[in-house]
Amino acid sequence: MSTIFSKIIAGEIPSYKIAEDDENYAFLDINPLAAGHTLVVPKIETDYIFDLSPERIASLTRFAQRVARAQKEAIDCVRIGVAVLGFDVPHAHIHLVPLQTEAQLNFSNPRVKLSEDEFRKIAARIAAKFC
Amino acid sequence: MSTIFSKIIAGEIPSYKIAEDDENYAFLDINPLAAGHTLVVPKIETDYIFDLSPERIASLTRFAQRVARAQKEAIDCVRIGVAVLGFDVPHAHIHLVPLQTEAQLNFSNPRVKLSEDEFRKIAARIAAKFC
Repeated sequence: MSTIFSKIIAGEIPSYKIAEDDENYAFLDINPLAAGHTLVVPKIETDYIFDLSPERIASLTRFAQRVARAQKEAIDCVRIGVAVLGFDVPHAHIHLVPLQTEAQLNFSNPRVKLSEDEFRKIAARIAAKFC
Repeated sequence: MSTIFSKIIAGEIPSYKIAEDDENYAFLDINPLAAGHTLVVPKIETDYIFDLSPERIASLTRFAQRVARAQKEAIDCVRIGVAVLGFDVPHAHIHLVPLQTEAQLNFSNPRVKLSEDEFRKIAARIAAKFC
């Protein structure tokens, strides 16, 4: 059975896509800790990130770096924070969160509410900086 | 001026070392969110993790994966959580935290108090599983 992320990658469920390469996919978290909060996932379905092969984890991280650089250019923030938890969707994913302060990288914080139009514009801004 | 982490890597400040390779170093966080909470740092002094070269970030992540696998074998936990914040020491570092629940990866939580002897034993247990 496909995970929700595999369905997003396949286009069966819509997402605010940022970028993809052969092995990885990035899209906005729709329950963001901050505007521009992005999820980076490997296209291969693996629950636990450290079960990826060393080659795949390197590929995922290099891709995440490109996404983080685009976020930093597109979103007003001090730096991009990183978190991997993995207790919800059984498909490894890296949270990349634009931060003004350390305290923002806290998953018990209230989430930011954005309209569809805001999500779309933020995704387009980050995607335009991805290279 | 050297960062505190460069001094730890150079052995000028003692640490509960887990492992090192040519480019990276891992040691216990002395203010841990959970027993076995480890910091993984590149030997090169770079403040912001995404300013590392793609090769260095891949090297750091593959090394972190080996550390996380050792932690998982040595420490009773469901999985190893990952966080990169970077608002304190200006030398990039990945937090690898043994988690029973998602809520444990919260830097506003109270820290676990351990004795020197406990730190030493935990470091030795993880180091013994590192490969």
